[in-house]
Amino acid sequence: MDLPLGYRYAATYAGIRAGEKDDVGLIVSGLPAAAAGVFTGNRVQAAPVKLCRRHLAASRGTVGAVLVNAGNANCATRTGDAVALQCCRAAARLLRLPVAQVLPASTGVIGVELDARLIVNALPRLVASLREDAFGAVARAMMTTDLVPKESSGEVRLRRGMVRIAGMTKGSGMIHPRMATTLGFILTDAHIPAAMLRRMLHRAVERSYNRLSVDGDTSTNDTLLLLANGASGVRPDPKEMAGGSPLDEGVTRVAEDLARRIARDGEGARKLITILVSGAATDDAAARLARSIANSPLVKTAVAGSDPNWGRILSAAGNAGVAFDPRKADIEMQGVAVCRGGLAADFSEAGLKRKLDGAECEIRLVLRGQGKGQARFWTCDFTEDYIRINASYRT
Amino acid sequence: MDLPLGYRYAATYAGIRAGEKDDVGLIVSGLPAAAAGVFTGNRVQAAPVKLCRRHLAASRGTVGAVLVNAGNANCATRTGDAVALQCCRAAARLLRLPVAQVLPASTGVIGVELDARLIVNALPRLVASLREDAFGAVARAMMTTDLVPKESSGEVRLRRGMVRIAGMTKGSGMIHPRMATTLGFILTDAHIPAAMLRRMLHRAVERSYNRLSVDGDTSTNDTLLLLANGASGVRPDPKEMAGGSPLDEGVTRVAEDLARRIARDGEGARKLITILVSGAATDDAAARLARSIANSPLVKTAVAGSDPNWGRILSAAGNAGVAFDPRKADIEMQGVAVCRGGLAADFSEAGLKRKLDGAECEIRLVLRGQGKGQARFWTCDFTEDYIRINASYRT
Repeated sequence: MDLPLGYRYAATYAGIRAGEKDDVGLIVSGLPAAAAGVFTGNRVQAAPVKLCRRHLAASRGTVGAVLVNAGNANCATRTGDAVALQCCRAAARLLRLPVAQVLPASTGVIGVELDARLIVNALPRLVASLREDAFGAVARAMMTTDLVPKESSGEVRLRRGMVRIAGMTKGSGMIHPRMATTLGFILTDAHIPAAMLRRMLHRAVERSYNRLSVDGDTSTNDTLLLLANGASGVRPDPKEMAGGSPLDEGVTRVAEDLARRIARDGEGARKLITILVSGAATDDAAARLARSIANSPLVKTAVAGSDPNWGRILSAAGNAGVAFDPRKADIEMQGVAVCRGGLAADFSEAGLKRKLDGAECEIRLVLRGQGKGQARFWTCDFTEDYIRINASYRT
Repeated sequence: MDLPLGYRYAATYAGIRAGEKDDVGLIVSGLPAAAAGVFTGNRVQAAPVKLCRRHLAASRGTVGAVLVNAGNANCATRTGDAVALQCCRAAARLLRLPVAQVLPASTGVIGVELDARLIVNALPRLVASLREDAFGAVARAMMTTDLVPKESSGEVRLRRGMVRIAGMTKGSGMIHPRMATTLGFILTDAHIPAAMLRRMLHRAVERSYNRLSVDGDTSTNDTLLLLANGASGVRPDPKEMAGGSPLDEGVTRVAEDLARRIARDGEGARKLITILVSGAATDDAAARLARSIANSPLVKTAVAGSDPNWGRILSAAGNAGVAFDPRKADIEMQGVAVCRGGLAADFSEAGLKRKLDGAECEIRLVLRGQGKGQARFWTCDFTEDYIRINASYRT
């Protein structure tokens, strides 16, 4: 993967998690980077989320570094605000940055005090080991129940030259749409003004992280950041950064790919489920229908059991709060028509069961006579392992 | 249990389910009964739900019989409307009732044609075997994945004499609030005008079935009926039927007890969870907070694992869309303070873990400085068995 120019990375074990596995990571941009962020909609917000917002505002969206830790969410803690600030200050001092140019992000258990010294003591080691090719080390350091690190990248040719985009993300449970979910950092070496970057991030989130659900829970720490440091020397035309432009689509593709990787690695999941809704009155109505199907534990357990139980899909759509006539609804699973006009279609149950045994499941809901609204949504199947993981997360 | 006077019951095996276990039930009132109903909010509504609404409207809330079947929801079926009507007609003929005085209800698999002849052929047998003491037989006949039949009853002494209330219900999955969930029939021998009965049912539902969640899915067939046949000869004063009156409270208590029994028998559940929220700005805000906690799979799996993970409870409350200051939030589990002012309280984790091993779990969220809004909500823990049951429901 060709990484964006001008970023360096480092990760190490600071002693936050029990097991000796990297748990802090640092991303540093050589040039001041424009930055935009989207954060959890939860009323309970972790200290690093609050501080990250404050720093973005204070620095007017100019950023030098992102400091991330796993193993402790630094949420609902007595000392949380001071701890987050102390860690950013220590990083800023070592990197010779204003403190507001260091953005913090944390993930892990809620309600346990985080010892700032662990991170402060690890920082000199981190800064000394910054490398241009350690992108993956940070992606691994921020994993919690993730089974695999999640990275995605792309290149976009603009009129004035090539720019690169790369993203990393973490998360496999407590995943729910309607906000940037979990932690995610997307970096580019294009030169993009902060205001433009914010609009680009919101468009990308709407089609990626906001179309993703694992278990319907929203964490207190969700943070998605988009950084653009201009290290490529390429200043895109305004048109080249607008909605639908190649650069905008490039950022969205990376965000979509990261979101899909989270769904595929959903806690206990064995199957990635892609839900496609079309023919709704509006894109928003289509997204609501898709979200309702994606959030239905009955649909997700049926997919786990390779059961082409389309009645549950129709019923979940019926719960979306979107008006539609079931007699004008068709459903396909793995490309096989299972429901036509709200009624059972003629299909081989045994044949479809076999097709549902694979690692990917596609569910398509097509409405007729409403409009051209469409949406894509990702989730995963729901297995006994989700329960096992979450009944014993802290023990 | 002292049953309401003037009702008779019968159940038999009509051949709808695979296994030979009663699958149709009939409830008949000797006197014309006033009736009120609450139905699913799902956009996809089963044929019996649509017909039940039509019959209630056509008969102006006067009812003679309820005909229920399990094993087939008669939803998303080609012949559904005709089948539901045909079954009601056959019952009406045998019972010498206008067809609109027979209310149908079905539960079971969606999208499979229901053969009307199975029920029509069983009806003479059902009518011939009607008995005053076969209440429990109907409660058993409408079970699907339920492990136990669910009945509740009570008596209320009014100024003019004693009246009795008895209810039966079914359901253990696809259970979600904001409508009368699953099937439920509550009967009383008090004399209550239909308009009064409707208000009474809505008040009861708001505090019982609308405060219940097993898995966040809402069925296409949810039907809750309240019948009052006046067979006790007792005509309550208007005051005695108003909100908060002993009769109103008596109906609500039966409905609450039925709802609690559904939560306790939730698919795969080993524990009943009662969530109590107080100190919210309004009762509605309290109910939204309680619902968000009840719907959190992370809270429900933590309870399954006897893990006092209060951070998940606080985070779930934060997702309710209700404004509150976490620094003014206290949480208790099993009466033990686990969180004070949004921070960890000092408690023995091992001791609380033992207390969480029991069959009931109480979670209490207390907000300070907002108001007097409160709510109670029921759900169950979330175990591997839920997945096992639902991954193979049809196979």
